[in-house]
Amino acid sequence: MDVQEIDLGAVREQVDAVLKDFLEGKARSAAVRSHPPEAADILRNFLGAGGKRIRALLCVVGWHAAGGGEDRAAILRVAASLELFVAFALIHDDIMDDSATRRGRPAVHRELRTRLGPSSRAERLGAGGALLVGNLALIWAQELLHTADLPLHRRRAVHALYDAMLEEVMYGQYLDVMGTGSDDDLDAALRIVRYKTATATVERPLQLGAAVAGADDTTLELCTALGLPLGEAFQIRDDLLDVFGSTDGACEPGSGDLREGKHTVLLALGLRAATPAQQRRLRDLVGWADLDERGAAEVRAILEEAGARRSTEHMITTRFEQVLRVLDTAALPPAASRALRGLAVTATQYTS
Amino acid sequence: MDVQEIDLGAVREQVDAVLKDFLEGKARSAAVRSHPPEAADILRNFLGAGGKRIRALLCVVGWHAAGGGEDRAAILRVAASLELFVAFALIHDDIMDDSATRRGRPAVHRELRTRLGPSSRAERLGAGGALLVGNLALIWAQELLHTADLPLHRRRAVHALYDAMLEEVMYGQYLDVMGTGSDDDLDAALRIVRYKTATATVERPLQLGAAVAGADDTTLELCTALGLPLGEAFQIRDDLLDVFGSTDGACEPGSGDLREGKHTVLLALGLRAATPAQQRRLRDLVGWADLDERGAAEVRAILEEAGARRSTEHMITTRFEQVLRVLDTAALPPAASRALRGLAVTATQYTS
Repeated sequence: MDVQEIDLGAVREQVDAVLKDFLEGKARSAAVRSHPPEAADILRNFLGAGGKRIRALLCVVGWHAAGGGEDRAAILRVAASLELFVAFALIHDDIMDDSATRRGRPAVHRELRTRLGPSSRAERLGAGGALLVGNLALIWAQELLHTADLPLHRRRAVHALYDAMLEEVMYGQYLDVMGTGSDDDLDAALRIVRYKTATATVERPLQLGAAVAGADDTTLELCTALGLPLGEAFQIRDDLLDVFGSTDGACEPGSGDLREGKHTVLLALGLRAATPAQQRRLRDLVGWADLDERGAAEVRAILEEAGARRSTEHMITTRFEQVLRVLDTAALPPAASRALRGLAVTATQYTS
Repeated sequence: MDVQEIDLGAVREQVDAVLKDFLEGKARSAAVRSHPPEAADILRNFLGAGGKRIRALLCVVGWHAAGGGEDRAAILRVAASLELFVAFALIHDDIMDDSATRRGRPAVHRELRTRLGPSSRAERLGAGGALLVGNLALIWAQELLHTADLPLHRRRAVHALYDAMLEEVMYGQYLDVMGTGSDDDLDAALRIVRYKTATATVERPLQLGAAVAGADDTTLELCTALGLPLGEAFQIRDDLLDVFGSTDGACEPGSGDLREGKHTVLLALGLRAATPAQQRRLRDLVGWADLDERGAAEVRAILEEAGARRSTEHMITTRFEQVLRVLDTAALPPAASRALRGLAVTATQYTS
């Protein structure tokens, strides 16, 4: 089966076509039954505005890794389901953080607030509307899963993995929101990374794809061995990009996470390596909504000076190398192995 | 099979036992994996604090109506799933309305806000934590469904009905939150009643139970014929109780819906029947957060005088009678028919 490469560009188009068909169907049936059609439209626009579909691609690669099969309809449905799940998580995240934008457009709760026009209740109602659109994204993600044509045994395996993934993400977000741990607790920061993002970004998508192909436990464990380090590297890089931007300037340095006071690995490493005076400055600056660019620049300088940026990059590199080691020894179909190597580079390089 | 009655008290206890076991298991596995165990605890307390389990009971009665069976484990799991779904919907509803209490205890977002202690961010973080606990309730509701032991054909039917129910409720809530229709639009008010509550309270639970028993289309349609009028009567009564309380005093008159300016059937009927002067007063008073008891009393007096209370009671009665007519002609197992009659009385009488 395997002289050919996996055409990830084509996979992406196929997944997008499933999402487009599904959401157009939802908009049509809403119109017929006097339901508000804009919920489906908002999700279509949200998905159309960008996103790398990394989870969907990993899901399809996981399916190839476990031997794939002739019938592509079920795997594309499961892969598409992951992208609706991501939309759900991001829309709710943006409500909780009151983020202004997402993928270069107004965040959904901000867009709905604007639609409601000037009113004392628009802020609360806009957030309520976005919460419901997010819920629909989750409900529809599961509908895509329920309507994937799978034999009972594989269906059970897919549901068990998907339910575990959803639970992990909620727990990770809960720790992030309600977390009372100290800001220099590296273990706590890594736990948030692991559950909020790492498992749901790489490990579970790979496993879900493999389960659609009827994978055995050995293959599912291999997905974990690849997925955890790659997922952590991906998220740690994301947190690094949020503060420092990318070296090629494609991603601007920002201050969102710093204003939020997010318990990131970068910040925990900074606080642990900083002098007492630097620690005081970091705690004076981070976690305040009014942090300005000058303050953010000072935080960046302290994180550089304390070596936190370098240590964080090192954590990404060691995880990336771990992924390559696992790939080198795993008995995977060569095309799946090459596709995973390519996705690992995409997901961890600083310049994308 | 059917000289015996369906022991609804016993069913309730069995459903509660499934929920308790499931959530205790979630708390235990959270503790083992360093996840926050309080999410499961909050849901256990939420479900333990009350609720009539009307949806779970209707689900089990629907199962009996379609012939039931020997294996009760699957139907109890599906019935329990409905109660976790209700917890999800109520927790999110309370965030959107910023309700202070639920079932005589602080609403979940208020409880979490208190736990966070005095902080400028406690309000937003408490709402975020509650949003995630609500999401977990939905995710776990679906996990209960996924792990119910059903053959593939029935599993598909159950998922299709459940997905339709979730979508309807979200659309109903979306109309309620984002609705821009005029406040005297009786059709819009009935549409909100239908989708936000009526189908999810009676029709879908009956159908889900019937589908677990392998019901044919005729039985599913009978569930609709019973479920829509009963569900509407239930919700219209709920809106009436919110404003006027119950005649036996068990439920106090309130002003929550009036402050919210909810587009209820009661209000739409009032606005349609009121004189122009009364309409102006209603619009001056309803929909303002600072409505006091004196203002609420004036609203009640206008609604009485315009005959809206009486017309609303009449709408409940006609729907209740419709349910009885359907029950009289339906070829249901007698015990299921009697149980449905009893639940119809419970769900529509003004004095409970």
